[in-house]
Amino acid sequence: MTMNRVARLVKRPAPGLVTPECFEIADEAVPEPGDGEFRVRAEYVSLDPAMRGWINEGKSYVPPVSLGEVMRAFSAGTVEASRHPDFKEGDQVVGLFGVQTHAISDGTRVQKVDPEIAPLQSWIGGLGMPGLTAYFGLLRVGAAKEGDTVVVSAASGAVGSLVGQIAKLKGCRAVGIAGGPEKCRALIEEDGFDAAVDYKAGDLGAQLDAACPNGIDVDFENVGGDILDAILPRMNPFGRIAVCGLISAYTATSLPPGPKNIRFVLTMRLKMQGFIVFDFAEDNATALADLGQWVKAGKLRLREDVREGGVDAFVDTLNLLYTGGNFGKLSLKV
Amino acid sequence: MTMNRVARLVKRPAPGLVTPECFEIADEAVPEPGDGEFRVRAEYVSLDPAMRGWINEGKSYVPPVSLGEVMRAFSAGTVEASRHPDFKEGDQVVGLFGVQTHAISDGTRVQKVDPEIAPLQSWIGGLGMPGLTAYFGLLRVGAAKEGDTVVVSAASGAVGSLVGQIAKLKGCRAVGIAGGPEKCRALIEEDGFDAAVDYKAGDLGAQLDAACPNGIDVDFENVGGDILDAILPRMNPFGRIAVCGLISAYTATSLPPGPKNIRFVLTMRLKMQGFIVFDFAEDNATALADLGQWVKAGKLRLREDVREGGVDAFVDTLNLLYTGGNFGKLSLKV
Repeated sequence: MTMNRVARLVKRPAPGLVTPECFEIADEAVPEPGDGEFRVRAEYVSLDPAMRGWINEGKSYVPPVSLGEVMRAFSAGTVEASRHPDFKEGDQVVGLFGVQTHAISDGTRVQKVDPEIAPLQSWIGGLGMPGLTAYFGLLRVGAAKEGDTVVVSAASGAVGSLVGQIAKLKGCRAVGIAGGPEKCRALIEEDGFDAAVDYKAGDLGAQLDAACPNGIDVDFENVGGDILDAILPRMNPFGRIAVCGLISAYTATSLPPGPKNIRFVLTMRLKMQGFIVFDFAEDNATALADLGQWVKAGKLRLREDVREGGVDAFVDTLNLLYTGGNFGKLSLKV
Repeated sequence: MTMNRVARLVKRPAPGLVTPECFEIADEAVPEPGDGEFRVRAEYVSLDPAMRGWINEGKSYVPPVSLGEVMRAFSAGTVEASRHPDFKEGDQVVGLFGVQTHAISDGTRVQKVDPEIAPLQSWIGGLGMPGLTAYFGLLRVGAAKEGDTVVVSAASGAVGSLVGQIAKLKGCRAVGIAGGPEKCRALIEEDGFDAAVDYKAGDLGAQLDAACPNGIDVDFENVGGDILDAILPRMNPFGRIAVCGLISAYTATSLPPGPKNIRFVLTMRLKMQGFIVFDFAEDNATALADLGQWVKAGKLRLREDVREGGVDAFVDTLNLLYTGGNFGKLSLKV
């Protein structure tokens, strides 16, 4: 008999990396859909940096996952039973189905995907939340335009890789910050970045100076900490800092120091703006039309890092995001 | 024989308050205007927080004052000799005439003022750079609208007092942060703020909570440091932080820590934007029309702190700005 393998949050983590005892992973009966519902057999669970924040207590942009609740996650799968008029068996779908192999949904915020455009796992990556995040953050919040120098941190991650590629499609100079020579080489040779900065190689400032001879117009900030502090003094007047993430702080065990170069926000009249992809949801269709067209035309390379191990590997795989262990969009095959 | 009393920058200051040996104060011959020039007899020299930055070396929004140069300052005075077609003897004018009693100008960026609307010294205050700063910062950068809660730090200063009053004119809740019970009382009783927070009285967070029961929509930031860190966690989603000044850092002897609560920029999708009043120069006329009308109608109280002592008192009077010693728009009668 098939069972639903599921990860439930049972304990809030202490600051730092997530530890296994925070989750109870167990087999439960596969649930049956009620009237107006359908059941999804998940295939890929998306692992996203924001998940570390979702399991903390406290005020944020969404309520935290409750204790006892299935861990919140986007996943992609196939409808295998339906009593919902708009979803039929065999439909490929993406939604907030959680870290589990089988989920019941009433269709709220579920998206049917077109495997003709890209394979299922891409719809939690370049054509999913990371793609939309890169698109809205760069073009709306960052207001990147032709000729701008765009710097993106965590550039070899799901979002960063797309930010650089979209920047190039829009006629910008794209500079990526990543850890280690292998990732930096791939940014240039595979993703088409103009330059790469290796934050593990030291002297971030001098590397940025060399990579950005005309200063920085747009910073797509995924990391914060020392990286943001090295970027701030190099921003051009009226530059934009789109704050997408501050991953350097997510697993810190005490509140890390703030950006000591904050004065450049004043003197260079910078706009530093935080954003969450859901804020732009009403324009998702427009963005997905652009992204889908670029993917079909081969103009956007979707770097995917799919891991094996199923639901049981959830915690270890998630922690890769906070230790620089992934290379591209991280997901778990379940 | 009348002489020009003038303060010239002769040494860059060490970090901290300005020390007297940075300036040479001397009598020089009163200069004669050439063709297309006029001479101003200054009456009030404006003292502004930004002056501390103008005498440092390094990249900023304007080049630093050079060694040997007359100290840069706005001042207000009367034309006493003119060979310029547009300025005649007796005209009252405001411009970047420097810290001196007599100045030559070719009219560049000089404004003729109307003493019918307000007395001369107001044109370096509520109807000058501080007034324009408050106006553009609150309404353009901060995008304050009816019903918003607006917090302003250094609220008893030249800019802060106007920010609160303009906020009230626009139907906002105005909360001022100032040092000491006397200033806080005056903010409420004289300037019409809804609430005042005394940063010297401790527990800034609890005081802000009490003063802002609906959170903060707009922070007009003049101070930075601990004050900004107390404001950040109390900002409402999509709040705006108009960064006008970071005076807490201007006389720091080492680079102060950055805002450790920077993560709220992300989670609350805040917009933190630096600005300089000159960026809005093309709209000065519109702003001055509004400000002038409010002043004439008695809707805007211009708090002026005019000090005696002439050019020789320049350094001591300037330092009042960085020690909380002024109360309203600070200027020096020369």
